[in-house]
Amino acid sequence: MDFSVPPCEFRAMLLLTPGPVTTRPEVRAALCEDIAPWDNSFKDFLADLRARILVLAGGVTGTHATLPLQGCGHFITEAALRTFLPPGGRILVPASGAYADRMVRLAREAGRVPVPLPIDQGRPADPAAIVRALAEDPTLTHVGVVYSETGSGVIHDVPAIGAAVRQAGRRMIVDAVSAIGALPLDMSAQPEIDAVVFTTNKCLEALPGIAFTVARVDRLLEGEGQAGSWSFDLTSIYQHALRSGWGSFRFTPPAQVLKAVGRALDFHDAEGRPARLARYTANMRTLYAGVRAMGLKPWLAEQAQGPVIVNVHAPADPAWDLQRFVDALKRRDVLISNFHNTPTPTFRVGCIGAITPDDMGRAVQAMREALDEIGVKQREPVLT
Amino acid sequence: MDFSVPPCEFRAMLLLTPGPVTTRPEVRAALCEDIAPWDNSFKDFLADLRARILVLAGGVTGTHATLPLQGCGHFITEAALRTFLPPGGRILVPASGAYADRMVRLAREAGRVPVPLPIDQGRPADPAAIVRALAEDPTLTHVGVVYSETGSGVIHDVPAIGAAVRQAGRRMIVDAVSAIGALPLDMSAQPEIDAVVFTTNKCLEALPGIAFTVARVDRLLEGEGQAGSWSFDLTSIYQHALRSGWGSFRFTPPAQVLKAVGRALDFHDAEGRPARLARYTANMRTLYAGVRAMGLKPWLAEQAQGPVIVNVHAPADPAWDLQRFVDALKRRDVLISNFHNTPTPTFRVGCIGAITPDDMGRAVQAMREALDEIGVKQREPVLT
Repeated sequence: MDFSVPPCEFRAMLLLTPGPVTTRPEVRAALCEDIAPWDNSFKDFLADLRARILVLAGGVTGTHATLPLQGCGHFITEAALRTFLPPGGRILVPASGAYADRMVRLAREAGRVPVPLPIDQGRPADPAAIVRALAEDPTLTHVGVVYSETGSGVIHDVPAIGAAVRQAGRRMIVDAVSAIGALPLDMSAQPEIDAVVFTTNKCLEALPGIAFTVARVDRLLEGEGQAGSWSFDLTSIYQHALRSGWGSFRFTPPAQVLKAVGRALDFHDAEGRPARLARYTANMRTLYAGVRAMGLKPWLAEQAQGPVIVNVHAPADPAWDLQRFVDALKRRDVLISNFHNTPTPTFRVGCIGAITPDDMGRAVQAMREALDEIGVKQREPVLT
Repeated sequence: MDFSVPPCEFRAMLLLTPGPVTTRPEVRAALCEDIAPWDNSFKDFLADLRARILVLAGGVTGTHATLPLQGCGHFITEAALRTFLPPGGRILVPASGAYADRMVRLAREAGRVPVPLPIDQGRPADPAAIVRALAEDPTLTHVGVVYSETGSGVIHDVPAIGAAVRQAGRRMIVDAVSAIGALPLDMSAQPEIDAVVFTTNKCLEALPGIAFTVARVDRLLEGEGQAGSWSFDLTSIYQHALRSGWGSFRFTPPAQVLKAVGRALDFHDAEGRPARLARYTANMRTLYAGVRAMGLKPWLAEQAQGPVIVNVHAPADPAWDLQRFVDALKRRDVLISNFHNTPTPTFRVGCIGAITPDDMGRAVQAMREALDEIGVKQREPVLT
């Protein structure tokens, strides 16, 4: 057969969904290889990838292990809930927004007992409220926290919540899906964390298809046999990886997507996590100021606004139509979500991915033109 | 940022693992795009992809639905077991080899009760044995069959087994992971089949990272609420897809991998399923005759040998070492697995993927050179 190589297809579109995010072409180009996932060279690549990812979460070799799981963030979250909580086990989940709600549903359907803790979604969870809830219910063994709640855009204080959890002698599972790669995390200083779960298509600026956890080895061993799902048994994944010298999956992995993660980590290493966070923060500020300047109202107060996603109240103007706005933006090479994840109507714009404040300035200008095009004049929300 | 496009990386390596399989460069090139999975144009693409895949399984619009699941074949198999069997539900699994064993383990750990039926792994399962087993145990509601058992290389007779299951008034789940795309399947003529599960990185000649089921809609609705896992609840996937007009995933999909599936289906349509099966069969014959000509003994008798994978007995010569053989082949641009899935030591070679009998002839020549290189003279197995 003919194996000449056509060039990578590419459209110069800004993905602000988020995510998947805008990625570098070099990262996408790393997808384009046939790979035998049990070949020794791929095993070596994987062992190196695990070690690099461990560092991102502040894990310690020997104490913590990096475990990959095919699929998406929901899958690795369910796997952590199944592995670290026994059937019927109880977990307190501060109800920070859409992704906390999803952790609750994943736990409930897996036969665990999630206990949502109502909180103000417009600000970081108060550790004192968690302290009280844990004191009132000694059957709660765990707290599940969404570090960067994409539903609202709020960043929660994982060290402060963790200190409260540690003080109460309980354990913690951290959903860091849209945090790892930009926000700091130091599992070595937070022994109460059983597992941090995340994907690579957010702040790591790679593609969707693979999820990871960094988890405590002692807790993985204690969790043996309680997952109630071979696919989602993190202890089984750990033991298989250990036997194979850290390189091997149990089941066929998305090898191309993993190769792209490796390439994306090269760029992450070159930029550095603090610089990446600073870039995202600058993207967010450009966006936040930009939408305000055109008369729109962000969903969060400025001091509560995190650097990952900005939700903006839907304008009161009867001409407002989210899909029409999305389509008008798309004609200007800017892609945002055509749904909202907040309790009230909004549009959501991501600040993460391989984009700069200049790119965000272009997106803001596109929003201005799109609002004009669809005829939205009254830009304050109905309810303020 | 700089968005110039580097070319696709590509090595002219034959992947005979199988799979992942050797893919066409055009299929890999389809990976190289940033994609917003909830964008309407991607939804349209997905709706079309679902319809095309329905046809591959002989599904009927309205009666059957195509449902995608992020991840791998094991995940979609577990999802089908959870959705179509209640907790404690009992499924007969003809023990055809490694992948039947995996279905058994997936069912058991998910709280279902698999009942393995011992069979001769060297030939297709006898429908009469299944009839007897079902007659003896009326609590068995299901039969789980591996269509193409990659463990052995045997193709099982899904229509004949299905007729037995239908006659007995039971239901069937078909693992068609390494069958769909090459072997015929007509769900419209087999109403006893609840679901066919498969991935796209085998006979569809696409990449790993996504799995599919084609399932009966009536049975999906009857299965509501019994999965015990939100992630693996096919009814939930169905209902979400229906609400969204067939385009939408519940959770972030591997959008690039899906785009590659679409491109791979273009090539599948152009070739036609019977021609693809004929090509794989010709690949298998080239391989089977080739290894015999160099004194090796295939694991299966010729009349039981399927077109997907050929297992070959490990030679008795003390110089034999699977990893050394694999490495010697790799230096000749041929990749095979460095493990075996048969009860006795073998090496396994896939006949599927974007390869022709000429390619297979090249692989056979490489095997001949590799055996010479590592000094294997006694090529008959120890036990014949």
